[in-house]
Amino acid sequence: MLELENRIKKDGRVIDNRILKVDSFLNHQLDPALLTRMGQELARLYADTAIDRIVTIETSGIAVAYAVAMAMGNIPVVFARKKRSLLSVDDQYVTSVYSYTKEEEYTASISRQYLPARENILIIDDFLASGAAALGLIRLVQQAGSRTAGIGVVIEKTFQPGRATLEQAGYRVEALASIESFTDNQPIFTSSHVRRKT
Amino acid sequence: MLELENRIKKDGRVIDNRILKVDSFLNHQLDPALLTRMGQELARLYADTAIDRIVTIETSGIAVAYAVAMAMGNIPVVFARKKRSLLSVDDQYVTSVYSYTKEEEYTASISRQYLPARENILIIDDFLASGAAALGLIRLVQQAGSRTAGIGVVIEKTFQPGRATLEQAGYRVEALASIESFTDNQPIFTSSHVRRKT
Repeated sequence: MLELENRIKKDGRVIDNRILKVDSFLNHQLDPALLTRMGQELARLYADTAIDRIVTIETSGIAVAYAVAMAMGNIPVVFARKKRSLLSVDDQYVTSVYSYTKEEEYTASISRQYLPARENILIIDDFLASGAAALGLIRLVQQAGSRTAGIGVVIEKTFQPGRATLEQAGYRVEALASIESFTDNQPIFTSSHVRRKT
Repeated sequence: MLELENRIKKDGRVIDNRILKVDSFLNHQLDPALLTRMGQELARLYADTAIDRIVTIETSGIAVAYAVAMAMGNIPVVFARKKRSLLSVDDQYVTSVYSYTKEEEYTASISRQYLPARENILIIDDFLASGAAALGLIRLVQQAGSRTAGIGVVIEKTFQPGRATLEQAGYRVEALASIESFTDNQPIFTSSHVRRKT
């Protein structure tokens, strides 16, 4: 999504050729019109797939997931909650996720009543890097007896194993911007044309 | 907002005549179409006021704030972050907020660059009860040298001091649903007609 790549070039901040901060439009301040267009684009990429429900994780996935749900015609969204400790409660699906960014483990949970069985689920998140968060959400969907139809993210770092891990496990991944490297603290994007050939 | 009152009656769960859980459409699962209509209604209530920016607080305020921002014609949203400890950083506005629900203090912070001076700010949140969170956001807006033009919430509990405290401090409050009591674990709503007379 060229508009997004341009916005990342303009407003993103790369720290130590490693961390991309997009606080100006996605993770702290939100640009509502851009969010809406990103939701429309993710909905378009999955227009060939029946989706019953969107699953995301707090905090920064929520606005994107809502935008996708509206573009898909008002399907329900449920966001997993992050907690520090593994507190397994009977009425929740629970899994443990390791955050490489924060270097700590957290618990992701969704109430059973908001994750029914036999549904087609689209997982939405802001970033895809290690794939740990997406794999955690996939496990919650599996626990519920539903099927992950795909993963849609705003920004992926293709130099980290997220996409490869998910695709090898048989999952479809769509990203609005794919960063293959950081050079001199600038993001280098893989065009979607190239990405699809690899 | 009658649609919201009916939805609360139908899907809300009241615990011990004290706590209202609206996880089915606002705090865990989201109903995108209802969110959009709630955003439109809050925008309509503040249509007579110039608003430059919406300030909210993670997590459950984010989707509502985004909906209001779209209805107002794409104004920026910034959400305050909650942290456990008071970690004052130079590039952030920081304040301490006591959560009566969780019975603990947390820190709300917003980066200085996303909260400029001399703006008219609309504060949006999901619930108004004690008013502590709204007052915390008002303090951040004050630190920035901007003006809080009003507070808009989805659900207020008028039997708690939030509205009275904010109005006595000179702030305008608009709520989409006002609960004056819980009786037999059912919410009793104050109609907006009555509310405006008092």
